[in-house]
Amino acid sequence: MTRYHRLADIIGDRIKQGLYNRGQRLPSVRALSVEHGVSISTVQQAYRVLEHRQLITARPKSGYFVCQQHGLPALPEMCRPAQRPVEISQWDLVLQLTRTRSARDVIHLGPGVPDVTANTLKPLRKLLSRVALHPDLRSLHYDELSGSAPLREQIARLMIDSGSHVAPEGVIITTGCHEALSIAIHALCQPGDIVAVDSPSFHGVTQILKGFGMKALEIPTDPLTGVSLEALELALEQWPIKAIQLTPNCNNPLGYLMPDAHKVALLTLAQRYDTPIIEDDVYADLAYHYPRPRTIKSFDEDGRVLLCSSFSKTLAPGLRIGWIEPGRYMEQVLHMKYIGTGATSTQPQLAIAEFLRQGHYLKHVSRMRARYQLNRDIMTEWVQRYFPAGTRISRPQGGFLLWVELPPAFDTLRLNRQLESKGVQVAVGPIFSASGKYRHCLRLNYANRMTPAIEAAVKCIGETVAQQLEACALLTPAAEAAQDGQ
Amino acid sequence: MTRYHRLADIIGDRIKQGLYNRGQRLPSVRALSVEHGVSISTVQQAYRVLEHRQLITARPKSGYFVCQQHGLPALPEMCRPAQRPVEISQWDLVLQLTRTRSARDVIHLGPGVPDVTANTLKPLRKLLSRVALHPDLRSLHYDELSGSAPLREQIARLMIDSGSHVAPEGVIITTGCHEALSIAIHALCQPGDIVAVDSPSFHGVTQILKGFGMKALEIPTDPLTGVSLEALELALEQWPIKAIQLTPNCNNPLGYLMPDAHKVALLTLAQRYDTPIIEDDVYADLAYHYPRPRTIKSFDEDGRVLLCSSFSKTLAPGLRIGWIEPGRYMEQVLHMKYIGTGATSTQPQLAIAEFLRQGHYLKHVSRMRARYQLNRDIMTEWVQRYFPAGTRISRPQGGFLLWVELPPAFDTLRLNRQLESKGVQVAVGPIFSASGKYRHCLRLNYANRMTPAIEAAVKCIGETVAQQLEACALLTPAAEAAQDGQ
Repeated sequence: MTRYHRLADIIGDRIKQGLYNRGQRLPSVRALSVEHGVSISTVQQAYRVLEHRQLITARPKSGYFVCQQHGLPALPEMCRPAQRPVEISQWDLVLQLTRTRSARDVIHLGPGVPDVTANTLKPLRKLLSRVALHPDLRSLHYDELSGSAPLREQIARLMIDSGSHVAPEGVIITTGCHEALSIAIHALCQPGDIVAVDSPSFHGVTQILKGFGMKALEIPTDPLTGVSLEALELALEQWPIKAIQLTPNCNNPLGYLMPDAHKVALLTLAQRYDTPIIEDDVYADLAYHYPRPRTIKSFDEDGRVLLCSSFSKTLAPGLRIGWIEPGRYMEQVLHMKYIGTGATSTQPQLAIAEFLRQGHYLKHVSRMRARYQLNRDIMTEWVQRYFPAGTRISRPQGGFLLWVELPPAFDTLRLNRQLESKGVQVAVGPIFSASGKYRHCLRLNYANRMTPAIEAAVKCIGETVAQQLEACALLTPAAEAAQDGQ
Repeated sequence: MTRYHRLADIIGDRIKQGLYNRGQRLPSVRALSVEHGVSISTVQQAYRVLEHRQLITARPKSGYFVCQQHGLPALPEMCRPAQRPVEISQWDLVLQLTRTRSARDVIHLGPGVPDVTANTLKPLRKLLSRVALHPDLRSLHYDELSGSAPLREQIARLMIDSGSHVAPEGVIITTGCHEALSIAIHALCQPGDIVAVDSPSFHGVTQILKGFGMKALEIPTDPLTGVSLEALELALEQWPIKAIQLTPNCNNPLGYLMPDAHKVALLTLAQRYDTPIIEDDVYADLAYHYPRPRTIKSFDEDGRVLLCSSFSKTLAPGLRIGWIEPGRYMEQVLHMKYIGTGATSTQPQLAIAEFLRQGHYLKHVSRMRARYQLNRDIMTEWVQRYFPAGTRISRPQGGFLLWVELPPAFDTLRLNRQLESKGVQVAVGPIFSASGKYRHCLRLNYANRMTPAIEAAVKCIGETVAQQLEACALLTPAAEAAQDGQ
C-alpha cells in the first residue's frame, strides 16, 4: 500500500466517523502535510483518491470539501397546474412576505434577498459616497428617462456574456427588475388578457398581472429543465395568450437551467404563435458554472424577447436598479417607464456604472457564485438531515433559493403560523402560484453564511414539519378539516 | 426738508434714471451710510420713504430691491377647454421635453427642475455619503414596502404645516411624486374611465391617464384661483367622473394658490358626487408666504383625498423620493406600489429622514422660497421687457414656473424649432393639455440664478416670438398653412 493510499484511508475513516461534516472544508494540503509528516504531493494524491471514491470534492481556489451526496435527494414532482387561465389571489400572503423581510429578531429564510456583507461590495459603497459628494451635483439631477448613459453602456457590455448583443440605446434602466417586468407586461397586455407563466413562478409577476386585471395561465414545469414545451404549445393553441413570461436561468423558485435546445424551441414556438416572451434573467449571473448560461434573448432574431434583469440579486436589492431590453417594443415600454416613475434614481446608476467599469462586478459575482454553491450543498444537507423522510428538494444550478416539497397533506401556511413564536419564517408555496397551489411546498433562502443559528433554524423547521405531518396522520379526515378551519 | 427725505430723493432719482434696474438689489444700509456720510438710521428712514412711494421693496434678511410693478402684466385668460372627455395625445412632445433636460450646451427653461446648488443642500449630500458608508449596510437592503419608518415619521411631522394630520403608518414612500400619482390613478380607475383635471395641467398626469387607457376631462381654470367650481359641478353632473386630479397650491404651470374657501367647496362637491380627489402638493412648500398654504387634504374628513408629494422640487429630483397619503384607499394603493416597483430605494430615504430630523429641510426651503420669489420678479420683468406687447403672464405665488400666453396666432412648437439653433428651449404649451390646446403658450423655469446668460436667453426667446408674430401678420392664411406643414 502506498503512502498516499494509507493517508486516503485515514481521512476517509474520519469522514465516515463524522469527524468532518458533509459539506465541511477539509484541512489544507499544507496542514495535512505537516500533520502527517508527508510531502505536499502525497497529500494531493491522497485527496485525488478520495475524490475518486466520491467522498470529497474539490472547489477551485477554495480547497477540498466533504461530499454531500450520499444519494442525492428526490426532486420535486413535475407540477400539474389547472390548464386554464385564472384570476390571481394570494396578495395577502405576498404582503406578509414583504413585511417579514424587515422584521427584526427573526431568521428570514423566506425573502429572495442576497448576502450583502462581502468585502467585494465595499468599492460600491465607496462609489455611492463619492458620487453623492461629487461637486458636479449630477446625482441630484434627473438623468435621462431611459437611464444614465454610462450604466446602459456597461450593461450592454455585461450582456455579451449571456450571448446577447444589445446596444446601450436599446436598454432602459428601471427601479429594480420589478419595474422592468411591470412595464413590460403593461406595454404588451390589456386587462382581461392571458399571460402564460412557468409554475411555480415569481410572485412579483403574478401580482403584477393581478394589478392590471390580467389572467395567468400556469404551464407545467419540470424541476430540471423548466416549462414543458408540449404543454405550452397546447396552451398556445387553445388560448389567446398575449405574452409568455418565464425565468429560464437559475429559476426562482426551482433553480433549474433551461437547456439551450429548449430555449431555441421555445422561441420557435413563440414565433409560430407570434407571441412576445418576457424573460426574467435576474439570477443568471449567479449560475454556478462559468461562463453564465445564455439567455433566450441571445437566440432572438426578431426582437420579440423583452429581457428583464437587475442588480438586486447580484449586488444589493436596496439600490433598486434594474433594466429592460425591450426589443421591438421599445416605444411602448419607454412610455410605460415614464408613466410609472418618470425617471430612475441617479446616484446608484452612476455608482454602479463605475463599479462595473472598474471591474469590481465580475470579481464580486464570482465570489458570491462560489459561496452560494457551497451554501446550496450545506442547505441541501441540512434539509436532508432535519426534514422528515419523503421530503423532495430542488437542485439549484445558481442563485440562493431552495424549493422544498412535502407530502400533499402538509400545510405551509400553518407551518409559518407555528414558526412565528420560534423566530423563523419561510416563503410559503402558494405565493408562487396564481391559483394558490403548492400549499405543501416552501422556499428557503441560503444566501447568508451558514451559521449554527441557521442550522438550528432549519432543524426547527424540519421538526415542526414532522410534528405537523404526524398530527395529520393521527387525525381523521374530519378532524383535519376542522383544524384547517381554525 | 429732512436729511432722510433728501437722501430718499437722491436714490429715487437714480432708480428713475435706470441706474438701478427693476428687481435689482440696492446698496446696503451700511454702504449708503458711508457713501453719504449719514447715520444708519437716516438711511433706514430714507428707505422707508421709498418703500412708501412704492419704488422699492424690503425683503427680510436680503435687503432692499427696486420694485417690479410699474403696472403688473396682464394675466393669462381663463381657459375654455372642450367640455368633454378626450383621449390623450402629446406623448412625443413630453418625451422631447424629458430628452431636453439632459442635453448639454442648452439653456433649459423648459423642465420643471429646481436649483440644487444652494449651500443649504450640502448636509444632504454628506448624509447620503454617510448612509452609503455606514457599517450597518442598511442602505443595501430592502426597506419596508411602504417605505422607511423614520422618513414616514418625518413626513407626518412636516405635513402638520399644511394643516394635514397624517399618521406615519398612513404614508407610502414612492419613487418620486410621479409614482405617487401613477399608483393613485391606477388604484382608483379602470381603462376607459374619466378623470377630471385642471387645465392647463401637469403633463405627467395626462400621460399616466393615456398609459392606463383613461380619458381626461379638462376643467376651465382661473389663473388666480384655480379650477372653476361651477364648471366642475356641471361636469360631475354630466359625466361619470371617477376621480378629480389637481394641483391647488403653487399650481404647475399657472402658479396660483386656490383659496381655502374653494378647497372646502371642492371637497363638498366631491362628497356630493362621491368622487375621490388626487391632490398634487409637490410645490406647496415653496409658496412665497409663510406659513405654507393648506392642503385640500387638511379639510378632508372621510379620507377621500389622496395627497401626493415629493422632495423633487424642494430638494432634488434625482433622488426620486416622493410619497402618498392615500386615505381610505390605502390597501389598493399599497398593492399598486408593490406591482409598480416593489420597494423604493433605501439610501435616499434614510438620508432625507435624517436631513429633516436635523432641521436642515425648513432652513433650505425657506432660503429657496425667498430666492424663487426674487427670481419670479426678475423673470416677470424680463418677459415684460423682451416679449412683444400683448404678452400675458401668470403671477406665481410659489415655485419657480412662469406661464406665458401669446396671441392666438402664435405657435410654440415652431418657436422651439426656431430656438434649437440658438441653444435655448422652453416647455411648449400643448403638453399641458390632454387635447393639445395651448399652442400659443409656453412655460419658463426661473429656478436658477438669474444670470446675464439667462437674461440673454429670455431676450432671444422674446425676439424670436416677435419675429414669428410679425411673419404671421404678413402671411396670408394659405401661406401660413404651407409654412406650418414644413
